Amino acid sequence: MKINQTDMQPMFTPQSVAVVGASDNPAKLGFHVMKSLTLGGFEGTLIPVNLNADQIMGCEAFPSLTAFKGHIDLAIVVVPAKRVAEVFSACIEKNVKGIVLITAGFKEIDDPAGTSLHSDIAGMINRAEIPVIGPNTFGMVNLHANLNASFTPEFSMLPKGRIALVSQSGGLAHLLGFMAMRAQIGFSKIIGLGNRLNMDFAEMINFLMNDDETDVIMLYMEGIDQPIRFVEALKRHGNKKPVIIYKTGSSQKSDLASQSHTGSMAGKHAIYQGAFRQAGILTTDSAETLLDTAKALAVSPIPQGPGVAILSGQAGPGIAACDVCDACGLNIVNFNKDTQERINAYLPPLALRTNPVDMGPAWYDAKVQSGIVEAVMNDCHVDAVLLLIMFASANADLLGGLYDQFIKFKPGKPIISCIAAPPEIWDKQIHLLESAGVLVNYPTPERAALVLANLVKYRGIQFKARQNVKRKAVPLTWLVQNDAEQLSTLHQYSGL
Amino acid sequence: MKINQTDMQPMFTPQSVAVVGASDNPAKLGFHVMKSLTLGGFEGTLIPVNLNADQIMGCEAFPSLTAFKGHIDLAIVVVPAKRVAEVFSACIEKNVKGIVLITAGFKEIDDPAGTSLHSDIAGMINRAEIPVIGPNTFGMVNLHANLNASFTPEFSMLPKGRIALVSQSGGLAHLLGFMAMRAQIGFSKIIGLGNRLNMDFAEMINFLMNDDETDVIMLYMEGIDQPIRFVEALKRHGNKKPVIIYKTGSSQKSDLASQSHTGSMAGKHAIYQGAFRQAGILTTDSAETLLDTAKALAVSPIPQGPGVAILSGQAGPGIAACDVCDACGLNIVNFNKDTQERINAYLPPLALRTNPVDMGPAWYDAKVQSGIVEAVMNDCHVDAVLLLIMFASANADLLGGLYDQFIKFKPGKPIISCIAAPPEIWDKQIHLLESAGVLVNYPTPERAALVLANLVKYRGIQFKARQNVKRKAVPLTWLVQNDAEQLSTLHQYSGL
Repeated sequence: MKINQTDMQPMFTPQSVAVVGASDNPAKLGFHVMKSLTLGGFEGTLIPVNLNADQIMGCEAFPSLTAFKGHIDLAIVVVPAKRVAEVFSACIEKNVKGIVLITAGFKEIDDPAGTSLHSDIAGMINRAEIPVIGPNTFGMVNLHANLNASFTPEFSMLPKGRIALVSQSGGLAHLLGFMAMRAQIGFSKIIGLGNRLNMDFAEMINFLMNDDETDVIMLYMEGIDQPIRFVEALKRHGNKKPVIIYKTGSSQKSDLASQSHTGSMAGKHAIYQGAFRQAGILTTDSAETLLDTAKALAVSPIPQGPGVAILSGQAGPGIAACDVCDACGLNIVNFNKDTQERINAYLPPLALRTNPVDMGPAWYDAKVQSGIVEAVMNDCHVDAVLLLIMFASANADLLGGLYDQFIKFKPGKPIISCIAAPPEIWDKQIHLLESAGVLVNYPTPERAALVLANLVKYRGIQFKARQNVKRKAVPLTWLVQNDAEQLSTLHQYSGL
Repeated sequence: MKINQTDMQPMFTPQSVAVVGASDNPAKLGFHVMKSLTLGGFEGTLIPVNLNADQIMGCEAFPSLTAFKGHIDLAIVVVPAKRVAEVFSACIEKNVKGIVLITAGFKEIDDPAGTSLHSDIAGMINRAEIPVIGPNTFGMVNLHANLNASFTPEFSMLPKGRIALVSQSGGLAHLLGFMAMRAQIGFSKIIGLGNRLNMDFAEMINFLMNDDETDVIMLYMEGIDQPIRFVEALKRHGNKKPVIIYKTGSSQKSDLASQSHTGSMAGKHAIYQGAFRQAGILTTDSAETLLDTAKALAVSPIPQGPGVAILSGQAGPGIAACDVCDACGLNIVNFNKDTQERINAYLPPLALRTNPVDMGPAWYDAKVQSGIVEAVMNDCHVDAVLLLIMFASANADLLGGLYDQFIKFKPGKPIISCIAAPPEIWDKQIHLLESAGVLVNYPTPERAALVLANLVKYRGIQFKARQNVKRKAVPLTWLVQNDAEQLSTLHQYSGL
């Protein structure tokens, strides 16, 4: 079954949502799903379906989907696995536009009965051409629509933003969500793929590439059934939006575990990495770097090359960042003569005025620091700035001053920063600087430098993608039937 | 001059502190130092020295050190460089026990006058045998004595703890301090080495190895003048306390920058790393890993081997941790028969019950989860547990239950965890579990796994150190005079 973006839109922006298995009992997932929808501020019609209740959380309840006489856009299903086929029949009868199937116990279980159940319900729902997220998923969230179709009401605490997350693991989606809440990073959508009855990474890529609320697509992957479809979906969109992935399963043990977890073909980590590279997506190796990089991709301009100016209010953080830049292949440039003269005019001879610049002698002076930032911004060798400033009582007023200066000259190149202070002290000012699009801030100089390196990598990917478009005359065809062939084709494709 | 621990004690626990260059003017560092001492809760006598004031921040001020008639234990000096010799004379006359020299403008400046000034004041103070921290330092903090002898009053916001930080960079010390505040990690002392007039890493190692308030010594280093003295100081104490280091300067640019920054011999990163390994200290490559690892070393038992059990409430985080464990050489063990049977009794066949264990089917069940923890703790192959639990509305009560269970059976092996939740929700419970010594928690599964790998590395270092003690009969002698020779000897020593 081929599901396109038009098919998927209604389930993400439903007017009416049924919860099949809704409950007033906190021990049931159906209780938490109802909480998500009500606390999440969903404004459409909410239809709890439960055999034994008249009302759930203030909403009239119905004994079955068909007992409700109105239209239903989205059905969230949380009944036991053995009842899913019956519910799916009702979904087809009611002509629902999409299903979130939270229920587990299908392909992922160590029991042929699960696999058989999986293919039974897949068959019927594919004939009806209804898109399904799940089974074995926590659900999905469309923050801009105030739709929390998951069993975790707390996802609604996330700020609305421009980053979509597609995760093959509920645990990782929760982790990334909590990390984003703490760092105040906004999301557009969170999608828990689960065991992918008829919607996989490929469908989500197609959908999110055309989603007006999403600028960056963040993926967590363990393994996929049809890697070629995934890669082709990415290529089809020609790098329209940045896609960044964290794929686990590099070790034998984790590989086996992920096969069991999501019932998918994992394996061959290096092959995947090569294919990702060819498909033009950015790879990362931790949840932290995934989220850090997505944050920058969502708000920062992309550097036009690897030339970096490291400006630090205290020498140490500059040196630490230098190490990371060097290890990641960034170019800590020599400034041109004019830039150097301007910096020399700002700082006394005792300072380290070449790159990395130690702005120590002016550590409290916003005018000097922004003057130096402006000077290096105008240097043709500099593609981005790493700005590293540690709070001290004596420079407490610095950030306010920097804000005023930056707003005046509007830096046109990316500034990735580590501005660090005790809790509360500079948090608001940093948020203001980020909101004004001046800079993107990280908790350590090393993380800031790593993000900058990833932005530069992304620039390379964009560039390559444009070249690939030109070379479209030589198409690659994949006609593969099974996992082994897919993997073998993928292997050729990966260039390994 | 040789400074021993007895010489250093009085300056860290002074009865009386003079601030030479104290000020009521917020534009002066002497203002911030006074704020640090008063807001930091210092309970001894505070003696501001200022030519033009009768009183500063409620304390009677004196025109000179000698004008104060009582005894002075510690002098904090913040006057311009050209006045330091005169102040040092007064310090000698008053027989102070130690000096914190915040003033900059000595060896680190690009001017022979600075070097000459440096050796002049070093000569006079060494003859008087007075220990000096600095010059060009933010100062030092002894949290247990409520002594904030720095220009950053906010350091007093740090919880009191058992980790000492010795930093060659003020910026990194501030960064690590702010990170520790946010993560609520307690420090014993923070020492900003600055340009090391007569106290270097070696002296601090000697002092902190015998400091009752310090269990873990955390170092940030750019480069040192006398690496052999440092290594020998470490060997002298035979690994009595864990020492963990973050050394920057791996790139050519950062190496040059650090030479300029602290006027020290940097260079030869690989040689340093080899020497550190031989000296039995743990190396890390970021501020984050440095602090993460120090936190665990301060509170966790050390694993007796590399055998790890990965237990996760949701599969994904377990798989992510698996990758890191595997990459770091930890052994994701096969459980023995008895352990496996106990786990099988807790979890249904559909779950992944071998290592990594997916406790998904019991994700809300504290008794089952702690039962599994207890089972693997009793397995002779398991040296430590990685426990990975993501919050969801449906498992909100889990942590309270886990606390009750853990308190009962008192886990005897390390539990390194990533228990993650939205802000506020589980923070207190996690803090309780940490305070009870049950586990040590980190923001991501990858960081938790990396810390565990570092604990296992530390175990190897301890083991080697004990072997080295036995082999004491073959002493190594270093008789070297200058930087080049030091480096060459260090090179042989490093085994590279």
